[in-house]
Amino acid sequence: MKISVVKNVLDANDRIAMDNRTLFDTNKTYVINLMSSPGAGKTTLVEKTIEALKDKYVISVIEGDIQDTCDADRVAKLGIPVVQINTGGACHIDGNMVREALPAFNLEKTDLLVVENVGNLVCPAEFKVGENVKVMILSTPEGADKPAKYPLMFQESSVMIINKMDLIPYVDFDMKRAKRDALVSNKDLKIFEVSCKTSSGLSDWFQWLEDQIESFRKSSP
Amino acid sequence: MKISVVKNVLDANDRIAMDNRTLFDTNKTYVINLMSSPGAGKTTLVEKTIEALKDKYVISVIEGDIQDTCDADRVAKLGIPVVQINTGGACHIDGNMVREALPAFNLEKTDLLVVENVGNLVCPAEFKVGENVKVMILSTPEGADKPAKYPLMFQESSVMIINKMDLIPYVDFDMKRAKRDALVSNKDLKIFEVSCKTSSGLSDWFQWLEDQIESFRKSSP
Repeated sequence: MKISVVKNVLDANDRIAMDNRTLFDTNKTYVINLMSSPGAGKTTLVEKTIEALKDKYVISVIEGDIQDTCDADRVAKLGIPVVQINTGGACHIDGNMVREALPAFNLEKTDLLVVENVGNLVCPAEFKVGENVKVMILSTPEGADKPAKYPLMFQESSVMIINKMDLIPYVDFDMKRAKRDALVSNKDLKIFEVSCKTSSGLSDWFQWLEDQIESFRKSSP
Repeated sequence: MKISVVKNVLDANDRIAMDNRTLFDTNKTYVINLMSSPGAGKTTLVEKTIEALKDKYVISVIEGDIQDTCDADRVAKLGIPVVQINTGGACHIDGNMVREALPAFNLEKTDLLVVENVGNLVCPAEFKVGENVKVMILSTPEGADKPAKYPLMFQESSVMIINKMDLIPYVDFDMKRAKRDALVSNKDLKIFEVSCKTSSGLSDWFQWLEDQIESFRKSSP
């Protein structure tokens, strides 16, 4: 008996994520999948990024939460199109949830779509949504041991934003260890040190993001 | 055609958790399932609790982490029997993982077993391990919106420990909102305000835990 082996078949989520990706490419929409622990500062970073770039780019947001609309309410106040995905208990956003949200946007006119994932340092790292880039936030009160303890998150992300730098004097955060261990998981990880409260360091993040959007626009369709 | 309906069948995890529970009851071992976001202070609370109660009770610890042994190393330094469960990517500890760890302990002589779950505010709340009580930690830098955003965790837990009270002057934490929303999920939630760094408030937690252990010992077998 010969056993037929089917290799490299996309799983259901990867299939849908790839379809999303095609749609984003067609419309030249740059997509960020933003992940972190609960309370690391995802929504505040989204607010600050919108304020900094909204005169230059058309921005839309997908908010992923288990059940509420707190974060979507905050973004809507800035006059930005936002869709709330309530996962109803699920610990991450997947490709199909994002697909269901897309008809609410005018993608052709959207330059930047931010998908704010459910607060969780484990599960969201496993599911693509069709993003250009995965960005994760590590906040200083969480501790410098997190890159060693949750390696997949750091391996999958292209960017680590170290947030709450304003709390450095009051927490024990070994910056050298955090960076070293994160780079072990992903030697190409781009790192920013910021405080979304005082805005320190954010201009570097805005500039990097702008460069990414511009370079994506110039790429072949 | 009559359709037969089988009701209230335990799922696989509940079945194993119940078997664990029977074992703990037989040995009079009081078991805590300790949960929180990454970096909220689970291991530090475990260390402080061991230091406070180890002369009175025989304590053992199960550490749940995706891959490392950082936390188990910290506990082992205190001379306490500890088993590390590496979940290999799984975002929570389940009943079977705990069952596999139990042969390493002398349960008959163990008064208190602390199961420190994987850092995650979503998934661990769904899986019983056979515990007497689920205890969750909310740290002030995470923000007061967490009880509204992750209701299952607060609903399932009997105790909420609000940790990092020493950071209150430096973070925006609306204590009234956090407590109100947590009590909406669970009106019987027992709440402690502590700082594992300064030890403030910890004596109330130790006393509560001691009362629980004593009352469990006196209960029928």
